[in-house]
Amino acid sequence: MTYLVTGGCGFVAANLIPHLLTTGKRVLALDNFCRGSEANLGSSRHHPNLTVRQVDLSNLDAYRSAVSDAAGDSAIHEVWHLAANSDIPAGIRDSEVDLRDTFMTTYNTLAVMEERQVSRLFFASSSAVYGDHGDEILTESSGPLLPISNYGAMKLASEAIISAASEKFLTRAALLRFPNVVGVPSTHGVILDFIRRLRSDPAALTVLGDGTQRKCYLHVSDLVDAMLVIRDRSTDKVGAFNIGPEDSGITVAEIAAEVVAAVAPGATITYGSGNKGWVGDVPKFRYSLSRLQALGWHPQHTSLQAIRIAVREIARQEGVECGRR
Amino acid sequence: MTYLVTGGCGFVAANLIPHLLTTGKRVLALDNFCRGSEANLGSSRHHPNLTVRQVDLSNLDAYRSAVSDAAGDSAIHEVWHLAANSDIPAGIRDSEVDLRDTFMTTYNTLAVMEERQVSRLFFASSSAVYGDHGDEILTESSGPLLPISNYGAMKLASEAIISAASEKFLTRAALLRFPNVVGVPSTHGVILDFIRRLRSDPAALTVLGDGTQRKCYLHVSDLVDAMLVIRDRSTDKVGAFNIGPEDSGITVAEIAAEVVAAVAPGATITYGSGNKGWVGDVPKFRYSLSRLQALGWHPQHTSLQAIRIAVREIARQEGVECGRR
Repeated sequence: MTYLVTGGCGFVAANLIPHLLTTGKRVLALDNFCRGSEANLGSSRHHPNLTVRQVDLSNLDAYRSAVSDAAGDSAIHEVWHLAANSDIPAGIRDSEVDLRDTFMTTYNTLAVMEERQVSRLFFASSSAVYGDHGDEILTESSGPLLPISNYGAMKLASEAIISAASEKFLTRAALLRFPNVVGVPSTHGVILDFIRRLRSDPAALTVLGDGTQRKCYLHVSDLVDAMLVIRDRSTDKVGAFNIGPEDSGITVAEIAAEVVAAVAPGATITYGSGNKGWVGDVPKFRYSLSRLQALGWHPQHTSLQAIRIAVREIARQEGVECGRR
Repeated sequence: MTYLVTGGCGFVAANLIPHLLTTGKRVLALDNFCRGSEANLGSSRHHPNLTVRQVDLSNLDAYRSAVSDAAGDSAIHEVWHLAANSDIPAGIRDSEVDLRDTFMTTYNTLAVMEERQVSRLFFASSSAVYGDHGDEILTESSGPLLPISNYGAMKLASEAIISAASEKFLTRAALLRFPNVVGVPSTHGVILDFIRRLRSDPAALTVLGDGTQRKCYLHVSDLVDAMLVIRDRSTDKVGAFNIGPEDSGITVAEIAAEVVAAVAPGATITYGSGNKGWVGDVPKFRYSLSRLQALGWHPQHTSLQAIRIAVREIARQEGVECGRR
């Protein structure tokens, strides 16, 4: 029995796979190595039950071959579909990016699952499916779903085709609507961006937007815990789950202050204008977590705590020294 | 100035285009002639302001060339994107059908619109985006959106990518969530199916399912009226609109009785089991029409009236004689 993890060398997979390996089952990690790398997997990459293959999952023939070569006829127990473009602005400049790396990877995952009679799918969806709902507290039933980025659109398109597949051959599908997630290995995001800018110029940090964007942040350890809780305790045939912290988030200005305090105390922070950092950025959102809480899950960290932990983790990853707390 | 109509030789286009031509603007109708045909356009096809081109809209290069050849540099005022696979069971057997004809035609429509700086889009979406919500009265904000067919999934995916494009370059986008629509020229659907079966065997009609499926039906004349009302009176930058009759629909058994009474009085009707006709069929749904009613729109016909009118229209199309009413 094998777990298939797509985007298997990315940020979330690197934190999920160690948990999957503890079960004694095999793990097959597929990744296009566009942002992911084997190095992200840390000590797991030497685990005898882990197989890593580089493959472009938007190419169905290549996808099918990679699975056959690595898994042969052995049954795949379940799929964790985490592969996607994670560079939202890139997907707005060129809509082909999200079509290919976010949607077609889902479409092909379902094709391979149907061919191999694999019926359990856990999908990394996103808060971006909702679009901009202002101050509304978002439940999984909130609508209309009007994403403002191609990334959000192709995550919603993926949810849709998974839902249709649940009518046809899936017996279990969870649409896991991730918030902003922080931790290591970090490949992109606001903390990494700030740390790298401060490494170039420790005296000053320029922030896109006016700093008032307020968002929820979850530490990746809490995210992985929620993913496993949903898998193990939910009984929905197909269902969406908001995953996030239990607070109302923190602002970009607060994040900037945390990063500056940790890695470049005394640096001046200057802000741009507007409360959207870039086209397609939802300025703020707040989740209802009642579905997830009903399964008994609660996060260990608030948004602020998650940011504080991640700032230190990412600084270490980047070889930047942190001041004492 | 030109109106571009995709699926321009199909059922809805055949009823919309005469209205567009009354404005004196040019109409460019693009269709792959898979189900549509120029004959569907009736007397409109000889109108001097109408241009019809056969093209596979899932092929971006062909799409772009067809528009350039027919419209040259003249400005396209707005797009009515009606092209889609309309054979839901075919799309369930082979998910490639809806990916190509329902989703990629939308993706390519947006690509062509962005290239030509066309910013107004009216899209034929569907009640199928909601999935099966049982007895819930569906508003445009209802969720979760869990379509049960690839058709519904690719309509939702289309809504999603249109929504993202509204953040980028569209100034006006309406997501028109069609109900079941009846009238002529009829290319598929329950009435045409029943009439053709009764033509083969005027003594007996076998109905898939137990006949209790209850659905809303709108006559195409009311549909086109609603589409134009939304275009002319709504001011949303991007918004979804349920379009349907104001009643709670009629059952398949009632439709069967209407068809039998009109074209084969005395035929026996036998039913199958279950309340879903086929995989991907939502057994019933009921719309809230408050958004559309707030624009001052009301349909001329109930579901039953729409079916009665359409039975006679489709019988005439098929050359089947109707009894007197």
